[in-house]
Amino acid sequence: MSKTDVVLGVDIGGTNTAMGYVDRNGTLAASASIPTEAHRPAQEFFERFHRQAELLFSKIQDTHNLIGVGLGAPNANYYKGTIEQPPNLSWDFVDVVGTLKHWYTIPVVLTNDANAAALGEMLFGAAKGMRDFIVMTLGTGVGSGIVSNGEMIYGHDGFAGEIGHTIVDYNGRPCGCGRRGCLETYASANGIRRTVDELIRTTAEPSELRGIKFDDLTSKQIFESAQRGDKLALDAFDLTGKYLGMKLADSVAHTSPEAIIFFGGLALAGDYIFKPTKKYLEDYLLNIYKNKVRIVPSGLPPGNAAILGAAALIWNELI
Amino acid sequence: MSKTDVVLGVDIGGTNTAMGYVDRNGTLAASASIPTEAHRPAQEFFERFHRQAELLFSKIQDTHNLIGVGLGAPNANYYKGTIEQPPNLSWDFVDVVGTLKHWYTIPVVLTNDANAAALGEMLFGAAKGMRDFIVMTLGTGVGSGIVSNGEMIYGHDGFAGEIGHTIVDYNGRPCGCGRRGCLETYASANGIRRTVDELIRTTAEPSELRGIKFDDLTSKQIFESAQRGDKLALDAFDLTGKYLGMKLADSVAHTSPEAIIFFGGLALAGDYIFKPTKKYLEDYLLNIYKNKVRIVPSGLPPGNAAILGAAALIWNELI
Repeated sequence: MSKTDVVLGVDIGGTNTAMGYVDRNGTLAASASIPTEAHRPAQEFFERFHRQAELLFSKIQDTHNLIGVGLGAPNANYYKGTIEQPPNLSWDFVDVVGTLKHWYTIPVVLTNDANAAALGEMLFGAAKGMRDFIVMTLGTGVGSGIVSNGEMIYGHDGFAGEIGHTIVDYNGRPCGCGRRGCLETYASANGIRRTVDELIRTTAEPSELRGIKFDDLTSKQIFESAQRGDKLALDAFDLTGKYLGMKLADSVAHTSPEAIIFFGGLALAGDYIFKPTKKYLEDYLLNIYKNKVRIVPSGLPPGNAAILGAAALIWNELI
Repeated sequence: MSKTDVVLGVDIGGTNTAMGYVDRNGTLAASASIPTEAHRPAQEFFERFHRQAELLFSKIQDTHNLIGVGLGAPNANYYKGTIEQPPNLSWDFVDVVGTLKHWYTIPVVLTNDANAAALGEMLFGAAKGMRDFIVMTLGTGVGSGIVSNGEMIYGHDGFAGEIGHTIVDYNGRPCGCGRRGCLETYASANGIRRTVDELIRTTAEPSELRGIKFDDLTSKQIFESAQRGDKLALDAFDLTGKYLGMKLADSVAHTSPEAIIFFGGLALAGDYIFKPTKKYLEDYLLNIYKNKVRIVPSGLPPGNAAILGAAALIWNELI
């Protein structure tokens, strides 16, 4: 019996690193997760990672053949195979592909997590068959992956696709990047918390969210309040959709995508975020783009989306 | 003796239409220009155009072989081969490629003038050898052409690359597109006239430009005043560069180009526009992009740039 080809998809996160062996159809043959322990040296992490990956593969090696490794990580560079000053990891600069090449003779490719998500959607998810689309990862921060002409846009330096750091308001909220008013400060899980906080401070609107301290407030609570009809929570979603729609109108004017796919925690709020974003996007779009761009949710299973994205990265190179 | 392969490059403008036979190296074998007369039916125009093109080719046909036709026009659609509601032409909808196919059995391709300019820079001008760059056409309006991974970005609908219609200020100047605050209302020849007008009305700065009525004011006069050290004219260039630099920082966050190439009338002001744009671009760029993106002038001869761009469009399909 011939073995099934699989790739190893790896998502390196600030807290945990998830890995899984994925075949050409996006089926997961085996998966595991280890703590990243990013406060410890990167070399230690990669040794732990490799042991776990080998152990996991030993369970399926009789029926599967490993042909590549794809990794997604914050601030990863596709061209160099490196992670550079990642926001949630203490590692300053890590030659990821160089390190893994000590163990693997098969192709090893790295990109940032949002680009991996975009490739995952293209191969296995909501962007199947699309050649021009944008994936927005609306999580703790806001990432993006842009595909045009069926190809990932990496840009000259490998860092293209930072729509989360286009600017909504030049005098706006301080951003972790050191500037002000980035989309990320409005359209992320943390951004909607800040919007609720602003609405509490600047309006008299009664809200069940007024009883919660800022540090205790979560985007999930805002979503649940919105579901119960809390006007202030609904207003926060409306404003979040407005900022997102306004800036996505600029993005459409760059690459004119068929669809924009929302991925990540905030996207799970469904219509509460999709409806206002769509409305304001249409309001702000240049005429020629109106009523052409769909906004759709991720088509990847939430639990394994990041692994499938990293696997898609390497499948995309191999097929 | 074998004949030299040439393509016919055509730039359809609001007033004149320029055409020329161009070889693989960007050498112009013959060129001509006819009035567009866009108030008359499009069919008449194409018949006049075809007669002129045939006449012109008769002079070089003993030594040249025609292998394709490339056209650039406002609001042209690459996929459909059509012009749709062009801003400076009275034609509502014209099937350009369909019309020319009555006369030509060789490949005929159409795109908008800014995309043609970008392809011209890639094949014959300042973007030779580049795979990731943006061309900004700073003329009466502001157009743009975006190249990533060595390919023109046309987008899902063929209308990608309208950076001139990304928004500087949502409450800003009315734009011809019906919205407010588009980059085009600031960074075009007309935009800098409006900036001078605003400075005259809102500051006490003495200026030789105060003596000129708005309708008589030209961007060339503003340039000449700047050259003579007129503070208000210099301030107008500084503001124009600021708006341009701010928005181009957003563009870099999309496609991370190696260079941004300025093309068109306003770019002829040289350092008066390049220096402030570069300064503000760097000020507004996300850290990872700083000091990486060059801003350079067009490398095409101004008189024939549009013809060479249209020729590059079809050469790019043939080679």
